[in-house]
Amino acid sequence: MVGGGQNAFIGAVHRLAANLDGQLELVAGAFSSDADNSRKTGEQLFLNPARVYGSYEEMARREATLPADQRIDFVSIVTPNFLHAPVATTFLKAGFHVICDKPMTLTLKEAKALRETVKKTGKVFALTHNYTGYPMVKEARELVRTGKLGKILKIVAEYPQGWLLDNIEADGQKQAAWRSDPKKAGASCCVGDIGTHAENLGRYITGLEIDEICAEFTTFVKGRRLEDDANLLLRYRGGAKGVLHCSQISCGEENNLNIRIYGTLGALAWQQEHPNELKFTPKGEPVRILRRGNGYVSEVAKKFTRLPFGHPEAFIEAFANVYLEAIAAIRASQQGKRLVADFPTVDDGVEGMAFIETAVKSATSKSKWTKFPRLRP
Amino acid sequence: MVGGGQNAFIGAVHRLAANLDGQLELVAGAFSSDADNSRKTGEQLFLNPARVYGSYEEMARREATLPADQRIDFVSIVTPNFLHAPVATTFLKAGFHVICDKPMTLTLKEAKALRETVKKTGKVFALTHNYTGYPMVKEARELVRTGKLGKILKIVAEYPQGWLLDNIEADGQKQAAWRSDPKKAGASCCVGDIGTHAENLGRYITGLEIDEICAEFTTFVKGRRLEDDANLLLRYRGGAKGVLHCSQISCGEENNLNIRIYGTLGALAWQQEHPNELKFTPKGEPVRILRRGNGYVSEVAKKFTRLPFGHPEAFIEAFANVYLEAIAAIRASQQGKRLVADFPTVDDGVEGMAFIETAVKSATSKSKWTKFPRLRP
Amino acid sequence: MVGGGQNAFIGAVHRLAANLDGQLELVAGAFSSDADNSRKTGEQLFLNPARVYGSYEEMARREATLPADQRIDFVSIVTPNFLHAPVATTFLKAGFHVICDKPMTLTLKEAKALRETVKKTGKVFALTHNYTGYPMVKEARELVRTGKLGKILKIVAEYPQGWLLDNIEADGQKQAAWRSDPKKAGASCCVGDIGTHAENLGRYITGLEIDEICAEFTTFVKGRRLEDDANLLLRYRGGAKGVLHCSQISCGEENNLNIRIYGTLGALAWQQEHPNELKFTPKGEPVRILRRGNGYVSEVAKKFTRLPFGHPEAFIEAFANVYLEAIAAIRASQQGKRLVADFPTVDDGVEGMAFIETAVKSATSKSKWTKFPRLRP
Amino acid sequence: MVGGGQNAFIGAVHRLAANLDGQLELVAGAFSSDADNSRKTGEQLFLNPARVYGSYEEMARREATLPADQRIDFVSIVTPNFLHAPVATTFLKAGFHVICDKPMTLTLKEAKALRETVKKTGKVFALTHNYTGYPMVKEARELVRTGKLGKILKIVAEYPQGWLLDNIEADGQKQAAWRSDPKKAGASCCVGDIGTHAENLGRYITGLEIDEICAEFTTFVKGRRLEDDANLLLRYRGGAKGVLHCSQISCGEENNLNIRIYGTLGALAWQQEHPNELKFTPKGEPVRILRRGNGYVSEVAKKFTRLPFGHPEAFIEAFANVYLEAIAAIRASQQGKRLVADFPTVDDGVEGMAFIETAVKSATSKSKWTKFPRLRP
Repeated sequence: MVGGGQNAFIGAVHRLAANLDGQLELVAGAFSSDADNSRKTGEQLFLNPARVYGSYEEMARREATLPADQRIDFVSIVTPNFLHAPVATTFLKAGFHVICDKPMTLTLKEAKALRETVKKTGKVFALTHNYTGYPMVKEARELVRTGKLGKILKIVAEYPQGWLLDNIEADGQKQAAWRSDPKKAGASCCVGDIGTHAENLGRYITGLEIDEICAEFTTFVKGRRLEDDANLLLRYRGGAKGVLHCSQISCGEENNLNIRIYGTLGALAWQQEHPNELKFTPKGEPVRILRRGNGYVSEVAKKFTRLPFGHPEAFIEAFANVYLEAIAAIRASQQGKRLVADFPTVDDGVEGMAFIETAVKSATSKSKWTKFPRLRP
Repeated sequence: MVGGGQNAFIGAVHRLAANLDGQLELVAGAFSSDADNSRKTGEQLFLNPARVYGSYEEMARREATLPADQRIDFVSIVTPNFLHAPVATTFLKAGFHVICDKPMTLTLKEAKALRETVKKTGKVFALTHNYTGYPMVKEARELVRTGKLGKILKIVAEYPQGWLLDNIEADGQKQAAWRSDPKKAGASCCVGDIGTHAENLGRYITGLEIDEICAEFTTFVKGRRLEDDANLLLRYRGGAKGVLHCSQISCGEENNLNIRIYGTLGALAWQQEHPNELKFTPKGEPVRILRRGNGYVSEVAKKFTRLPFGHPEAFIEAFANVYLEAIAAIRASQQGKRLVADFPTVDDGVEGMAFIETAVKSATSKSKWTKFPRLRP
Repeated sequence: MVGGGQNAFIGAVHRLAANLDGQLELVAGAFSSDADNSRKTGEQLFLNPARVYGSYEEMARREATLPADQRIDFVSIVTPNFLHAPVATTFLKAGFHVICDKPMTLTLKEAKALRETVKKTGKVFALTHNYTGYPMVKEARELVRTGKLGKILKIVAEYPQGWLLDNIEADGQKQAAWRSDPKKAGASCCVGDIGTHAENLGRYITGLEIDEICAEFTTFVKGRRLEDDANLLLRYRGGAKGVLHCSQISCGEENNLNIRIYGTLGALAWQQEHPNELKFTPKGEPVRILRRGNGYVSEVAKKFTRLPFGHPEAFIEAFANVYLEAIAAIRASQQGKRLVADFPTVDDGVEGMAFIETAVKSATSKSKWTKFPRLRP
Repeated sequence: MVGGGQNAFIGAVHRLAANLDGQLELVAGAFSSDADNSRKTGEQLFLNPARVYGSYEEMARREATLPADQRIDFVSIVTPNFLHAPVATTFLKAGFHVICDKPMTLTLKEAKALRETVKKTGKVFALTHNYTGYPMVKEARELVRTGKLGKILKIVAEYPQGWLLDNIEADGQKQAAWRSDPKKAGASCCVGDIGTHAENLGRYITGLEIDEICAEFTTFVKGRRLEDDANLLLRYRGGAKGVLHCSQISCGEENNLNIRIYGTLGALAWQQEHPNELKFTPKGEPVRILRRGNGYVSEVAKKFTRLPFGHPEAFIEAFANVYLEAIAAIRASQQGKRLVADFPTVDDGVEGMAFIETAVKSATSKSKWTKFPRLRP
């Protein structure tokens, strides 16, 4: 693991998710640019001190020199955004598979370069857009894929949070500080941190490609350097329309990612804070509440389920599902095979960065409609 | 009553609302341009056939000739949109107060002219933006007024419906036919019919004035002549931002008007389909579910409540609240007094038409940001 | 109307319900044993003072002497319980139809006597178990009737309220005072006032007959003379089991009547505070939320619906449905016909009194299992 | 681990919970009475085959002979009920701490004997009444402890499931088979398997002791040997009253454990299927939805929380909380200290067995009110 020292948020989440299924073991890390923090973190995690490194470069170099059956199989990158690309590139080139937090890079250009590196090295690269790991999100995708919604007309995706309603970065809150610092987070705070999850979720479920974006960014909190609220209108190729809004200053909101998808034959609604349920309304029929773990859900949703119905699963399990799929691909790769598994890839990372950059471009040109770059063939 | 013949929707609603409190009696009507329909409707309503008229002009003329203690006190106008202005003008000029359905007119110009007529005649004019009649909407306004939300930052208003997902106007469905006919409905279907309620609701609760609109209209159903879906970004004077989307093609949605308002000190959420509850989240505190009829709600909300807590009230009661307030103003006027009551006025009608026209203007200019006309001093 | 003077609760509700559909007109009343209250109430209701009577006996006598086309068609009885039987008997014998609030009488014996009177006079007698007037309760009954639940195994009915958590009768709160006074309310407060609604609701939906009751009554509030909380186990003929609990001291509860019914093929759940929705779960399938006003609900539910889907209806409309059905029966009776309409009858009143008496009998014999008297053939 | 071979349910849950926090490692097991199943399970779990044993006796014996730094620290017992006592006794006597699934034993007598063994050996014994591991259950207990509910008047605890609506044990479904077999499950199926969780939950939150029980057991499914549905009335010492009902034949119900607690000053409600929320209604105030992870929850609830608000936690985390506390006590014990940690103990197991036996006794004596044995000083 690179990143995830004491007081970090997402590193601890990655570890919980990685522990859950007993399929892997954390054996080495460069947890912080602060060597003392890194060392203490390693201790708390019962690691061999010899494999707790002072820098990610050192870690990549030294792990690569270990015998094949001792060295790490892959690295998890859980640093602030600006380090994702350099760390990933370093480990890929050193021969390691990579699981990386999102957004993938600081810029679209950097993302495309990373994609090249992944393709050249042939290594597995997984991006932890963790919300697509939820079984009922996979069920939603199945319903779309099997035509239960007909042609999709409208997508409403929301991601309101409220934790940045005050200028807590000025008080040294570390999570807030790097996310609102353009050098560490990139050109966007709110869209890069959470809006991109909402976009990814819509894309994962529907497969639709954005054509144009009209984005209104606002920095409500005085002294903040990046936007803390964004409202976007979307036009999809093929005629569907979208509304996507995200916020970090919406008082009382916790982590309320949610999506509604309306088609000619049916509609879907899913809320991350109640992840075991998926509302599905076939045209002219009552709303159905599909619940995880029941016999009536698809094989795909069942595959990513650990507990029986009514025994709720949540965030960590969804995160762990991304890990399980990435690990399956890594195992296959180690056996010389190529596995098409269900996890977000470097291509999703490129799309995500294109989304952020297009939104920023619209927002900085007085919210003009702006073309999404053509990324797919 | 003018309009509201057999098979009409809103006329029947007005009658239920007007009956509820036993404060008024329906005594005359011109219920349809089809004289036979009008006559039959009158019969069903136990009216004196002599006061069931073949046209609204005849009704205004003949009622005006009756002795003061026999003639109607006011007229309710429940026709399709294009008749609102001519009927209202005719009755105002004939000396009658008016209660009129929304949107007020076909155009902003017509709305301003009607406002002049109302001011000149000095009659009471009430517009049935009925959703502001709900007690918990009034409670929401009180919370804003008394500073419980602090400065308002963001408003998300939604009004999805699904009943026009098919081209039912082609099959002669009367409600769909006139709403999608530019001659009868005006320049907009979805925004005029329902988006304007969402706008009115936000304005009623917050008092904020729109500054600029970016509107994306879509006509999803083939053969339809006006938009059946609209997504809008809003900028308010003073810096708040808004998202307003409405739809008539959102499969499975019934009449899901809802609003969320985020301020620096608290947030509100209200849903029309569950009108007895109002969510209020003070910053840093748990969500509170305020419920109609309890001791802790404001005097304003209590005033508009008929039943004890837990005995749900709904749509008709809210509608009847608009009537009660308008009647109070009419009674006062009859006694030579002027009462400032809590009902939507001709000024709200002008703002509503300005909203529709600005949205249409933006939508027809490739969704450019468009200035809202300055209406308030 | 007899009863329903100023500050009464249920009288006002009856009037709102009776007004709603414009099918009847309140023309006479004896609103209070306090003649002054009665007179003032009559004034507020725009009644002819000559028909505002000082006592119900006078009203029955004098109305009976009016010409047939002027006298009342029926009387609504909205007094405290102890007056139901004498007033109803008086009016029935004077030749009037009766709509009466529940519970029907003070005792089962009195109930049976009243049943005799109704049968002898041949008049229409309707009991306002208003909760069975909700369209989605009727839909629930249809689902049971048409076999969608299979054989019913278990019924859980709840009716918690919290308004009597303090001894407000000691402070003169009128509604609390008579309900907790054995002379005015009968042998039970909580079961008589609300438990009986829960029992009636279960019986209406399922048609099942109770066989045995084990009832635990508690008077939690010091100084109160009747129970304010009751928990009951029920055995139904045919093998189904039931739990029924009701309370007036459950802090925070408003009027939370709700019922869940489990069968071999499906289950139902309905909550009075969210009356437009009915949950139906066919075995092995997702929960379906049936919503009032949709095309997929039965004709029975549609018949009792005034507004389109998504435009919520509530308590008053359900109450008015009882009135509409009773009025239909009264009209038929006036034309010499007998109409089997969908409203609670004197037989329901007898069953309700049997339920109260059996529960009281069990509770006062240390909560022993007690036989429900055989009432049906 | 003893038990938890392939196709077992609760063993897999224990392993997920034990993995989560990276605080312990599974090193040995006797997973099944079927040696082949045990061996395969061990392989799947990457265990050293030498430590996968053919029987629990062998495991206890051989582990005890390993050097102190190699042998297991404690055993997790996840077998059917009838083996809990013999396995626990064997390991306790062999010097190991024990974490054991519930119900603790087959009979109250056996439970008391096990309590003696625990006291004599001085080892840590934890019982996985996992539902008390939820942070918001702990918050509920804090609210009661700090007087926010005042004196508790009424408790309504429910635990409906529907998975045994058919006689699936006849088709060889293993989970159903042992639970409905008196030799393996004890004298009760429904109350022993799930009713006991509901009882434990109420006791954990309120600390109240049951005084008398009136229990109605039903076996709805033909051919089943134990009850699959139970409705109980409870009297608590001190005057509170309770309703507790549980079911395995309630169509559509998944794992709907829930509890409502009403006091003189406030009320609580919690549902296991939505575990991150706790409803708290102070008298005369709006319902408050307390949500896990917020600043306003107590230190106790915070201690048992891994993720920030809005990132839902669920069943596995709650289960893991029992493990974490038990492990803390085991570590302390290994250091010669005694730690009072927050996990269910052998005393809870004795109370649970007393609850089951009292319920069975009432049910088998025609549902007579039956005294709960005095267990506390």
